[in-house]
Amino acid sequence: MAVASREVHLIERPEGLPVATQFEIVETTIDDPAEGEFLIRNQYMSVDPAMRPRLSNGQQPLHKPLGAGTIGVVTASRHSAFAEGDVVQHGLGFREYVVSDGRGVSRLDAAGFPPTLYMHVLGPTGFTAWGGMLITGELKDGENVFVSAAAGAVGSVAAQIARIKGCYVIGSAGSSEKCEWLENELSIDVAINYKEGVLRKNLKAAATQGIDVYFENVGGEHLDAALPRMNVGGRIPVCGMISAYNNFGARSTGVTTLSNMVYQRITMRGFVVTDFEEKREKFLDDMRGWVADGQMKYRETVFEGIEQAADALIGLFTGENIGKALVKLD
Amino acid sequence: MAVASREVHLIERPEGLPVATQFEIVETTIDDPAEGEFLIRNQYMSVDPAMRPRLSNGQQPLHKPLGAGTIGVVTASRHSAFAEGDVVQHGLGFREYVVSDGRGVSRLDAAGFPPTLYMHVLGPTGFTAWGGMLITGELKDGENVFVSAAAGAVGSVAAQIARIKGCYVIGSAGSSEKCEWLENELSIDVAINYKEGVLRKNLKAAATQGIDVYFENVGGEHLDAALPRMNVGGRIPVCGMISAYNNFGARSTGVTTLSNMVYQRITMRGFVVTDFEEKREKFLDDMRGWVADGQMKYRETVFEGIEQAADALIGLFTGENIGKALVKLD
Repeated sequence: MAVASREVHLIERPEGLPVATQFEIVETTIDDPAEGEFLIRNQYMSVDPAMRPRLSNGQQPLHKPLGAGTIGVVTASRHSAFAEGDVVQHGLGFREYVVSDGRGVSRLDAAGFPPTLYMHVLGPTGFTAWGGMLITGELKDGENVFVSAAAGAVGSVAAQIARIKGCYVIGSAGSSEKCEWLENELSIDVAINYKEGVLRKNLKAAATQGIDVYFENVGGEHLDAALPRMNVGGRIPVCGMISAYNNFGARSTGVTTLSNMVYQRITMRGFVVTDFEEKREKFLDDMRGWVADGQMKYRETVFEGIEQAADALIGLFTGENIGKALVKLD
Repeated sequence: MAVASREVHLIERPEGLPVATQFEIVETTIDDPAEGEFLIRNQYMSVDPAMRPRLSNGQQPLHKPLGAGTIGVVTASRHSAFAEGDVVQHGLGFREYVVSDGRGVSRLDAAGFPPTLYMHVLGPTGFTAWGGMLITGELKDGENVFVSAAAGAVGSVAAQIARIKGCYVIGSAGSSEKCEWLENELSIDVAINYKEGVLRKNLKAAATQGIDVYFENVGGEHLDAALPRMNVGGRIPVCGMISAYNNFGARSTGVTTLSNMVYQRITMRGFVVTDFEEKREKFLDDMRGWVADGQMKYRETVFEGIEQAADALIGLFTGENIGKALVKLD
């Protein structure tokens, strides 16, 4: 009893900002699972900036569903390890249904938390923020911290980890609504709207004690502004450079202040979440504790229906979303 | 019996490339040393790119002799620790004579090497190259290495250390004469003349195995070209960014390829030679051995007379000098 399913395909590689016509919703039919397989009905799909480079660099095939973190429920199974009703997590979105043999699929034990949290604070974006801040960034209690894109899925967790560690925290975001959320809900010290005034000057005014750790999500103008403010021995964990992703694939606005790295002995280091895999249990211990006692807050921007998936992705780069962007399927 | 001496003063702060009229040779008279003091007749003065930022950032006072590494001989002494005829090293150039109470002055035991070597291969530039490559850069035997400004005082030592460690070494320099010296005398694998053709393309063609360590002296276009070639886990020890020093003090041509740091997990780290002080004996052991057995070669560009000191400094930024630039006093 095959099921009808819809998928979001990439049909043309974007050079700059992705536009809706580069994506297509394709109707397809999913066969019943064979022996050793099971059928997943997807419920939530993650929308993530890291998807962007893959659209241009060839890692995302054309005319195939976009790869994305996904939570679903098993609706039929001929696999010994997965049963009907299991909630599972995998990377096989953007599609409504998928048949799997179990590779890359894990059962989700939500441990009393809403399952979607495993797509952000308790999932990859939270783990990215935790590892980038505490391992790559070697954050110490009470330091001076700057987080760019601080209202984003990773940035909002990174900024709150710093706040929990007793740091002075400056965050940048692209709207006054986001800045209010950062200061009033997440209780960070100063939120800077980078679309108002001159970022370099506003950052200088806020960073009265300099910056020990700059958690880098944006690149370009943000990095240019942060480098002259770094303290001796400062660290810049580089999580992403979202400003570059739509600029001919991987080029940002030119950064001209890198010579500050020499005298300040700054360390800038790129990382990806898989670098921290062996620390996953420690991450989950920390983060479940912070979420449970209300220290770690989060917000979801939920798009309803697979028809909105491309818009949700585009919204990452136009600054529309607050917190974690998700697509909810019916 | 006071002596007549000449000094090079900074009289106007440069904004771009320094020009001769921003310096002045001042005739002065040096009093006899008082009790606890001694008189040094300077013989060699070091000319170093690190002097440039101090001209603009205020660290170098106006109407005072420029600070610079210097070797001299004690010609009169009323100090218990320094005797007439001692060869000494200090940072009190650019001037012909200076009276000292001993602070910042050390007696030089050349251990059988020409004393000027302690201003480059056996001195600060050699130590900078050694520490940057082996400590900050964590160079491993047989890796793939790129050194910018490879015909310079630091770069030529850095490139040869990599060669001695069995690495594949690419170097950049600004003339065919320098490139010939790098390939034929220093025996590095590929020298690229960055003034001919497109650096980015030439580096890509040369770096067939990618780059594990990029020893950064230049910044700007060089860094932009190197970043996309870095291998996973690559390291960029940042010794200097000479391309930035004359560009409004500290700004380079914009670097647009920094997003490569993320997926390649590149570490870029600034350093200064004082970071390695506790390893000085190990450095001297290594370097004296390599110089003595002919593995480490060097070249001096010697300017004769204090009248040429400003030109020697300017020559650092116009690419005139090969190897270490020195000013020899009569």
